[in-house]
Amino acid sequence: MAQGSDEFRLVEEPIDLPAMISAAHRPDCGAVDVFIGTTRVDESNGANVERLEYEAYRPMADMKLEEIGAEIRARWDVRHVAITHRLGPVGPGEASVAIVVASPRRGAAFEASRYAIERIKEIVPIWKREIWSDGYVWVGSQVGTRPES
Amino acid sequence: MAQGSDEFRLVEEPIDLPAMISAAHRPDCGAVDVFIGTTRVDESNGANVERLEYEAYRPMADMKLEEIGAEIRARWDVRHVAITHRLGPVGPGEASVAIVVASPRRGAAFEASRYAIERIKEIVPIWKREIWSDGYVWVGSQVGTRPES
Repeated sequence: MAQGSDEFRLVEEPIDLPAMISAAHRPDCGAVDVFIGTTRVDESNGANVERLEYEAYRPMADMKLEEIGAEIRARWDVRHVAITHRLGPVGPGEASVAIVVASPRRGAAFEASRYAIERIKEIVPIWKREIWSDGYVWVGSQVGTRPES
Repeated sequence: MAQGSDEFRLVEEPIDLPAMISAAHRPDCGAVDVFIGTTRVDESNGANVERLEYEAYRPMADMKLEEIGAEIRARWDVRHVAITHRLGPVGPGEASVAIVVASPRRGAAFEASRYAIERIKEIVPIWKREIWSDGYVWVGSQVGTRPES
């Protein structure tokens, strides 16, 4: 279960980064690390990624985000952890995931934030579909309609 | 000299984090790391830190922030680096320094951001004075009017 001000969310609207960051400013902490995963537009064969779409298997995804929060609390002295992952279509350069960690010490803030994004990719059932100008690709599974390069 | 959208600033007002973060969202990047140093309120002997004050030797400090940006550009594939350090009084829990790094890859974003804060503490002539309820301390120099504990 989430502790104190911790928050773990899946949202279908743009991620409210200023609100997430404000919630992490605490007088008992000296460091906040924020990691933002954004949609990178790759190009190949003259085609390019037009947008990404994220789908999740809920409520497993919600539960796994909370589990990552608990793992972080057990490993580092952190006083606030929040993770928001966006679902549905996300435009180029927009945030698909945001992690905010506050700790008395900067080393813990950096390490916990890095740990969170690696664990999200490992255990949270969220899939990304790249919509290219000439088809789509499910990232990871390599199933899709795009021509092979 | 600062490259592209890079920005290095010393400011006497609150740091505008939303503006710094918006400037780092780029379609050629998949990761943004934001590190925020905040004023931690320690307590000892029944006294507590009421606020912090930062002073800089300018323009040396400006030049050193740009130098750190150049070091990062030389070491990692980053596409945007911004550092803002606040000067003057800063209240409990408020941001005194913010670092924003965007990179195609998350490893580079985390490493460059961590490097930046370590280098700021090493080479940028900025000093912190802790104003306690019973006196003050220049952090680092241990010179001040607070009673020894």
